Amino acid sequence: MSKRIVIIGGVAAGPKTAVRAKRLMPDSDVTLVDQDSMISYGGCGIPYYVSGDVPDEKELRSTSFHMVRDATFFENAKGVKTITSTRALSIDREKKTVTVEYVKTGDKSDLEYDILMLATGSEPVRLPLPGVDLEGVYTISDLHKAIEIKDRIAKGKVGKAVVVGGGAIGLEMAEALTDLWGVETSVVEFMDQLLPSAVGWSMASMLTKHLRDNNIEVFLGEAAQEVLGEDGKVVGLKTGKRTLEADLVILAAGVRPRSQLAVEAGLQVSKNGAIVVNERMQTSDPAIYAAGDCVEIMHLVTGKRFFAPFGSLANKEGRVAANNMAGIPTVFKGAVGSFIMKAFDICIGAVGLSLEQAKAEGFDAESSYTSPSDRAHFYPGQAVMCLELVFDKRTRRVLGMEGVGPMNDGLSARIDAAAVAISDGATIDEFYNIEMCYAPPFSAAIDAINAAGYVAENICDGRMNQISPQEFCRWMDDQSLYPDWLVLDVRHTKEAAPLVEKYPEKWLSIPYDQVRARHGELTTDKTVIVVCNAGSRSYEIQLFMGTVGKENYLVLPGGLNFIRRVGADWLE
Amino acid sequence: MSKRIVIIGGVAAGPKTAVRAKRLMPDSDVTLVDQDSMISYGGCGIPYYVSGDVPDEKELRSTSFHMVRDATFFENAKGVKTITSTRALSIDREKKTVTVEYVKTGDKSDLEYDILMLATGSEPVRLPLPGVDLEGVYTISDLHKAIEIKDRIAKGKVGKAVVVGGGAIGLEMAEALTDLWGVETSVVEFMDQLLPSAVGWSMASMLTKHLRDNNIEVFLGEAAQEVLGEDGKVVGLKTGKRTLEADLVILAAGVRPRSQLAVEAGLQVSKNGAIVVNERMQTSDPAIYAAGDCVEIMHLVTGKRFFAPFGSLANKEGRVAANNMAGIPTVFKGAVGSFIMKAFDICIGAVGLSLEQAKAEGFDAESSYTSPSDRAHFYPGQAVMCLELVFDKRTRRVLGMEGVGPMNDGLSARIDAAAVAISDGATIDEFYNIEMCYAPPFSAAIDAINAAGYVAENICDGRMNQISPQEFCRWMDDQSLYPDWLVLDVRHTKEAAPLVEKYPEKWLSIPYDQVRARHGELTTDKTVIVVCNAGSRSYEIQLFMGTVGKENYLVLPGGLNFIRRVGADWLE
Repeated sequence: MSKRIVIIGGVAAGPKTAVRAKRLMPDSDVTLVDQDSMISYGGCGIPYYVSGDVPDEKELRSTSFHMVRDATFFENAKGVKTITSTRALSIDREKKTVTVEYVKTGDKSDLEYDILMLATGSEPVRLPLPGVDLEGVYTISDLHKAIEIKDRIAKGKVGKAVVVGGGAIGLEMAEALTDLWGVETSVVEFMDQLLPSAVGWSMASMLTKHLRDNNIEVFLGEAAQEVLGEDGKVVGLKTGKRTLEADLVILAAGVRPRSQLAVEAGLQVSKNGAIVVNERMQTSDPAIYAAGDCVEIMHLVTGKRFFAPFGSLANKEGRVAANNMAGIPTVFKGAVGSFIMKAFDICIGAVGLSLEQAKAEGFDAESSYTSPSDRAHFYPGQAVMCLELVFDKRTRRVLGMEGVGPMNDGLSARIDAAAVAISDGATIDEFYNIEMCYAPPFSAAIDAINAAGYVAENICDGRMNQISPQEFCRWMDDQSLYPDWLVLDVRHTKEAAPLVEKYPEKWLSIPYDQVRARHGELTTDKTVIVVCNAGSRSYEIQLFMGTVGKENYLVLPGGLNFIRRVGADWLE
Repeated sequence: MSKRIVIIGGVAAGPKTAVRAKRLMPDSDVTLVDQDSMISYGGCGIPYYVSGDVPDEKELRSTSFHMVRDATFFENAKGVKTITSTRALSIDREKKTVTVEYVKTGDKSDLEYDILMLATGSEPVRLPLPGVDLEGVYTISDLHKAIEIKDRIAKGKVGKAVVVGGGAIGLEMAEALTDLWGVETSVVEFMDQLLPSAVGWSMASMLTKHLRDNNIEVFLGEAAQEVLGEDGKVVGLKTGKRTLEADLVILAAGVRPRSQLAVEAGLQVSKNGAIVVNERMQTSDPAIYAAGDCVEIMHLVTGKRFFAPFGSLANKEGRVAANNMAGIPTVFKGAVGSFIMKAFDICIGAVGLSLEQAKAEGFDAESSYTSPSDRAHFYPGQAVMCLELVFDKRTRRVLGMEGVGPMNDGLSARIDAAAVAISDGATIDEFYNIEMCYAPPFSAAIDAINAAGYVAENICDGRMNQISPQEFCRWMDDQSLYPDWLVLDVRHTKEAAPLVEKYPEKWLSIPYDQVRARHGELTTDKTVIVVCNAGSRSYEIQLFMGTVGKENYLVLPGGLNFIRRVGADWLE
C-alpha cells in the first residue's frame, strides 16, 4: 500500500524531505503544507536580495536552472502535492490526522498521514520593547518582510537604520543597507561583542573594527529599550545610553524553534523549545519526523544537543529523514556548528567551540593565535589570515577554530577542513598534519591550519608561554595597572621605531636575528612580552631566552597582525 | 651531553628539521649541509618566478618578514650551523660520520653525528633523448636553472618553447611562458591525457581544452624522440608525429627520489628508489632519519607506500622527524596525495585515487560526476564546479575526489575537506553529511561535496543508472557504432533546440517539468540517455521513467556542463 506522507513546512528541510521521499517511494502520496504563499526559498539569501546583489526575489526561490519553485513546480516536476497558504492547526496522533486551515478563507480540513514530518522552522525572537509594532520595524522572518524592506529603501524612505542584534543576520542586513544603498546604519548589541554565540574576543573585535571602518556604527553592551515613533511610524531607537534616529529598525535578536504544534501534540520538546529527535530524525512519536530549525541536534564536541538553525543542516537532516521514511536506515550524527559570514572586504568564520564556550563546558581549554599568509607569502595578492584554534590541554583534542581573512574562499577552506577533523575528534597532533592541497596560488607549504596546530602543540607541551591578544591590549590600555613589564620588539629596527619612540620606558627593540648575539643586553627581571608581526619570531626568542636562563618572557601570539586588525588606540 | 645532528639537504624537509630540532634541543649541535649555494627556497614557486608574478628569486628564499634564508640567517637567527656548496659523499654508519666535499675546492672533511638526517630530495627524470645537452634545454631542478630560463626569456631569446611532460610542473611552466611572456608554447605528453598520475579523463580533458583555449598547443599520446639543434643550440623537438620549432625546451617528465647516498650506505630503499622510513621517519638505521622527496610514505587509501614529492608534506615529515630526534614520540601516518594547480582562469585538483587508479588497486570502483555551482546559484559571480567522486561500491568507502573549478579557493576548500574525510576512511554516507560552512557568498545550502556524496549513494544503491561522460562522448563521436540509442534532452525547449535540429533522429526534447505529464510519448525501447545541464534533472527523469516501467534510461552525469568543458566537436 502506498504511504501517505504529510510534511508541514515548505522552506528548506520540508521540500528536501518531500522530493527525496517521493523519489525513494514513487507510489507514495506526499503532501507538502505551508502557511505562506511563497515556499522553498533561500532564506540565507535575504540580505543579498535586500542589498541588490540578487536583483529579484524570484531568484531566491528558483532552481539553478531558473524554474520558480512554487506549488505548480512541486506538483508537475516532483509529483509532490503542495498546499500553500495553509496553516497546520493541530495533530491527532491517534487518528493520524493533521487539521489544517486555509488562511485566506478559514476553511478547515483534516489530512490523513502514515508518516508526518514537522519542518516548522524557527521564528525571530520578538523583543518585548515598546514600539515594536510601529511602521518601519521589521524582523527578518520571511521573504515578504524582505520585499517590504527593499521596497521601502528603493522608494527612498530610508535614510537611517538601526539593527538590533549583532548576530550574523543582523550584520549581513547592516552591510546590505550600508554598502549598496548608503543608508546610515547602526548596530546595537546587548552583549559586549558582536557574534557572541559564535566567536571570541579577537575575531569579534576585528569584525567590529572592519564594520566601523566601513561606516557602520557599532554599539556594544547596549540594550535596546524602546522603539520611538511619530504618527505610528518609527523615528528612532532608545538604548540605555543614547537615542538613535532611524526610519527603519530591524530586530535581529536571534531566532527560536517554532514548536508549538509539536508541544500541543505532546511530542517531547527540549527546555529551549526545540523538538527532540533521534539520530534518524524521529520525534518521540516514531511516526512523526522533524528536521531543520525546529529541532535540536547533537553537538559533536560537547556531546550535548544544541540548536543549529542553518539552511545547510536543514537540507541534510531532511534527506536523512526521507531515507528513514523509505526504510533506508540512515543517521544524522550531529554537527559542529560551522559558520561563515561576509562582511565587506573580509570574512569571519568559526567551527566548534570558542574559548569561552569551551571553558564553560568544563574543558581545560586554551587557544593558539596565529596570523600567517593565506597562500604562499611570495605569491601576489596573498593576505594575512588570523586564526584562533581552541584545544583541550589535557586531552589535546581540538575543540574549535575561528578566523578572519580577506573576502575570498580561503578561510572557508580552513573552516571546512577543520570541521571534518573536529567532527572526527582530532587531536592537535592529528590537526597539524592535516593534508591541505598545496600550490603557491592557493596555500603555503606550511598551511595556516597546520601552523595553528604547531603552535597549539608548543603551548600544550609547555614550550610556548603567551599572553592573549586581549590581555595584552588590557595591559597596554592601562599601563599603570601593570607596572612591572616591558615589550621586546624583534621586528626590524625601522618597524619598531615608532613604538620605541612613543613608549621609551616600555618598548625595547632588538631585531630577531640579533638576539642570539645581543641577549646580554637584556638584563631585566620584569615580565617581557616579545612582539613581532605574526608571533613566530617572538616564540623563537622566548624559547631562546629560556635557554639562557630567562624564563620571564611571554609571546604576543598572532603578533601585531592581530592587534592592528583588532584596533587599539595605543597603536595609533 | 649535547647531540650532534647532521642534516643533508637544505631545501624543505632539511631546514624544517634543523630549526625545529635546534628549538627542541637548544644545546644540540645542528649542522645543515647542502651542495647548492642557495638553500631553503620555495621550489613550487619557480613557475611564478619565471612568469614574473614573483619579481625576484630572493622572494622565493625569504621569510614572510623579508629576510633572505641564507647560511648567515640560519646561523644568526636559528643557531644552526649551515654549510652550503658542500656535497655529502658517503656515510660511515659504524663510525657515525659523513664525508663531505666542498664543491668549489674539492676539499673533503668528515662530520660526526649522533643523529643523521637525509633530506636529499628528488631530481628530474633525465629523458635519454638525443640532444638533451644542447644549449636551451632545461630541467626544472633548482633555482639556478629557473634564473637562467627567466634570463633567456627576458633577453628576448625565446619565441617558441616546448615543454616535454604534461605533469603539474610542466604545465605551470607552460602557463608562465605563455601568459606573461607571450612565448608560443607547446606541451608534449607521452600518455593520452595530461596529469596522468593525478586525475581521470574528464578533468584532464577540461584542462586540455582550457590550455588550448589559452593558446597552448597540447599534443597527447606523443613521445619526444629527439631534441634538435644547430651550432649547439636547441632549435626544435621531434616527436613520433611532428617536428616542433623551439628556442627553449623544458624537460618535465617527472622527478625521482635522490637516494644514492642512502643506497651506498646500505639503507633500505624501495624498488622505486625511495628511502624506506617508518612512521617516525626513521630509516632502516634508527640513527638515520629521512624525510621529503627522497622517501616513500604510506598512502592512506591503498595502504601501500607511495612517492609523494610535495613541499607541504616535506615540511610535515621534517617536523615529525625533529620531534622524534628530541624524544617526543610523533608519527606521520601518511597522506592521500592532495593536489591543486592553477591553469589560467581555472584550477584543477585531486585527492586520493582516480577511477583508473582505484580499479587498478582492485577496488570495486565507480565515480559520481556532478557540476553544481561553487556557491549559492543566485549569488553574483557563482560558477560551475565539476567534481568526480570515486568510491568503492562494496564497502561504500570514498577513495578519491577530483575537480575543476574557476580560479579561486573554492575547489581547494572541497579538496581539503575531502582529504580529511578520505584520510579518516569516510564512507559516502559520512561524506554527504560533511559540514561545510554555509553562507551564499561562499557555498550552497547543499554544498558541492555533499551533492557528490548524494549522487554516489544513489549510484551505490542502484537508483541511478549512468553512462560516463567519456563513454557518452564516444557514442556521440561515432554514432554509427552504437545505433540503438536516443537522447532525451530535458532542458528548456529553447536550450535543446540546436541539438534537436542537428540530430533529428537522435535528440528528443521534453522539458523536465513536463515529463510526468508527457511520458506516454516516449514509446521507444532503445537505450535513452537523459541529458540536462548538471545531471540532477536527468536523474529524476531516469528514476521516474523506471516507475512507469521504462528501465532503459541512463543519466548523463554532470550533464552538458561537463561536456562543454571537456569540449566535443559534435556539440559545436
